[in-house]
Amino acid sequence: MTTTPTAGTRPDDVRRHNRAALLRRLHVHGPSTRASLATDLGLNRSTIKALVDGLAEDGLVEERVPAQRSGAGRPSLLVLPQPQAAVVLAIDIRVERAGMALVGIGGEILGRGGWNIRSTTNDPREVFTKIVDTAGPLIDELGVHPVAAGVSVPGVVRHQDGFVHEAPNLHWTDIPLGAWLSRALQLPVHMGNDAELGALAEHLRGVARGYDDLVYISAEVGVGGGVISNGVSMRGAGGHHVGEVGHMVVRPQGRQCYCGSHGCWETEVGERALARALGLDEDSPVGAIVHELRLLSANGEAPGELAEFTDWLALGLGNVVNLLCPQLVVLGDLFTALPPALVEHVERTVRERSLVSRALAGTRVATSALGTDAKLLGAAELAFETVLADG
Amino acid sequence: MTTTPTAGTRPDDVRRHNRAALLRRLHVHGPSTRASLATDLGLNRSTIKALVDGLAEDGLVEERVPAQRSGAGRPSLLVLPQPQAAVVLAIDIRVERAGMALVGIGGEILGRGGWNIRSTTNDPREVFTKIVDTAGPLIDELGVHPVAAGVSVPGVVRHQDGFVHEAPNLHWTDIPLGAWLSRALQLPVHMGNDAELGALAEHLRGVARGYDDLVYISAEVGVGGGVISNGVSMRGAGGHHVGEVGHMVVRPQGRQCYCGSHGCWETEVGERALARALGLDEDSPVGAIVHELRLLSANGEAPGELAEFTDWLALGLGNVVNLLCPQLVVLGDLFTALPPALVEHVERTVRERSLVSRALAGTRVATSALGTDAKLLGAAELAFETVLADG
Repeated sequence: MTTTPTAGTRPDDVRRHNRAALLRRLHVHGPSTRASLATDLGLNRSTIKALVDGLAEDGLVEERVPAQRSGAGRPSLLVLPQPQAAVVLAIDIRVERAGMALVGIGGEILGRGGWNIRSTTNDPREVFTKIVDTAGPLIDELGVHPVAAGVSVPGVVRHQDGFVHEAPNLHWTDIPLGAWLSRALQLPVHMGNDAELGALAEHLRGVARGYDDLVYISAEVGVGGGVISNGVSMRGAGGHHVGEVGHMVVRPQGRQCYCGSHGCWETEVGERALARALGLDEDSPVGAIVHELRLLSANGEAPGELAEFTDWLALGLGNVVNLLCPQLVVLGDLFTALPPALVEHVERTVRERSLVSRALAGTRVATSALGTDAKLLGAAELAFETVLADG
Repeated sequence: MTTTPTAGTRPDDVRRHNRAALLRRLHVHGPSTRASLATDLGLNRSTIKALVDGLAEDGLVEERVPAQRSGAGRPSLLVLPQPQAAVVLAIDIRVERAGMALVGIGGEILGRGGWNIRSTTNDPREVFTKIVDTAGPLIDELGVHPVAAGVSVPGVVRHQDGFVHEAPNLHWTDIPLGAWLSRALQLPVHMGNDAELGALAEHLRGVARGYDDLVYISAEVGVGGGVISNGVSMRGAGGHHVGEVGHMVVRPQGRQCYCGSHGCWETEVGERALARALGLDEDSPVGAIVHELRLLSANGEAPGELAEFTDWLALGLGNVVNLLCPQLVVLGDLFTALPPALVEHVERTVRERSLVSRALAGTRVATSALGTDAKLLGAAELAFETVLADG
């Protein structure tokens, strides 16, 4: 039950709001002419000029005469975000590997770091120490000053303070990683579930651009889901991510999952199941699995060899589509390497199985455009949300 | 990408917005003193007085000196919505029965009608004719003038125009029921999926008051789900309802469902499955099933007799909670009659099976407070949404 404030909106608020909207537009859509900014934001050209001048003074954008002139008359100046002017630190913690990047406004990756986790240890204190030890030199090397950090974790994360309730495949429980990192890095730290951030990245910069209702499926050792509904990340009770699809039970007579249930979707289509389906040892490295999948794709082979895996993938996705009604399902991580024929087969099956999909004339199933960078870029976008809102 | 209009908000808009907010508050929360309205809406008392005076002039509310005075000084006048001043026609189409009610502002049912469907026919044209033939006399008898109609259908419905894409248990496909009804009734007609409207009613007037993230499970011949997320009905692609939980596959080796899949949740826990579990013929009337359930409840019996049914119910609900992360799951329709011991057992199992539920210290599972009226009242609320917004 909200009410409009009886006092009119103050000019300062309007200016701040418009400045943030303009910056966000440049960040997401890239360089734009003043004329297209005016059209897209519904503001007049003198307002745009004043806003752009202000942003240019603060070094956040620069203006150039466009290389290609369209039509007669004075060309509209091209406004470009300046990547170095607002930089965030993005961190992607996975079961087997951690990745790190400094990302500038506009989404450009300015520099990267990373290390393997499984081969050493996934003790949370060691992961924390390694993050801090890697970030310092990377920041110094690039000579930038990040204004916030975003962190992706494969687990249940409390958004307010980055408290990790449970990251089962890392064996983490109740780890206040957000508090540790914000103290050590001296930055605002924003943390989220990995699949939720994968969905965010694909929505803003990947295959899901232009789709307002989508589900992203992460697929490593664990399988997870992230949901964008009506253009925003869908959160459930307590602000937690929705889409814990990996522990959806699809085969009650199936293998026991560490969570206590039998036949969770993760046990049927996760990394180990996919390795088994390919005739590999279930602890095979990701590289070996991807290599086998690429061979299958190159041979143009039908998905027959992976028939059972394909059936479980389609069955679980059918459930996801029935429950969440997306326009698009994005298959991430390992699934990015699935043979196109297999993905098409799954898409057809999902459409046949879902009542809503039939009504909608078909949910699309596509592989990730950002691949292994999806969660890293999603973590950056999470950090940018507040940075851009503050203009 | 939205921007605040540069022009300030006009006083007329503010007044209209506040009037709608006040009316909506009275509609949902019932009679309130001017003082509590001022506090709840964040408006000063003179603004409240002007708004209430306006609504009283239009006959939408009346004011009374409260029976019980609290404290010294002049008592704050009690403002009551006038049920007859804004009435909607609510229609609940089920597989076995259709119900109808005239509902006044404040949520009071002023009059009812209803008829059995299965025993005659569920031909959409006949259902349509019967609705129109029943509505006329009911409206005349009560001497009211409904301003809108809301309709609940167990299927996939297009919200814009009430086009029924598919109502599988009614065997309806592509029926423009909304267009037919709005022409015949000469009213704006708003239509929705039955489980979605059940969720809306429980959220506003039932066991889910105060819960912003909930899933309502409808259980007749078909099983469906309705989702309220962050306080509003969650819609997916194309504005369609989310939560088609009945066709979530939970037992791939199970019975064939009419939808083409095997072992849909609906085939394991729907009306027919529940009848079988109780040792009844699977086509037993609802009354017989409810009678058996009440006997079990009265005997205080443990859920042992329904052990397998209980397992499937818990398994499916665990999936629903994992995917949608609600604070509360409301069991509607037939499930309202489940023995309390069974519901408690299911709640415990769901909490153990859901990662997010563990982090949240437990999702609640409760039976509907509105029972068979949930969808009818939800249809009324759908119609009231625009009525109240227009003040």
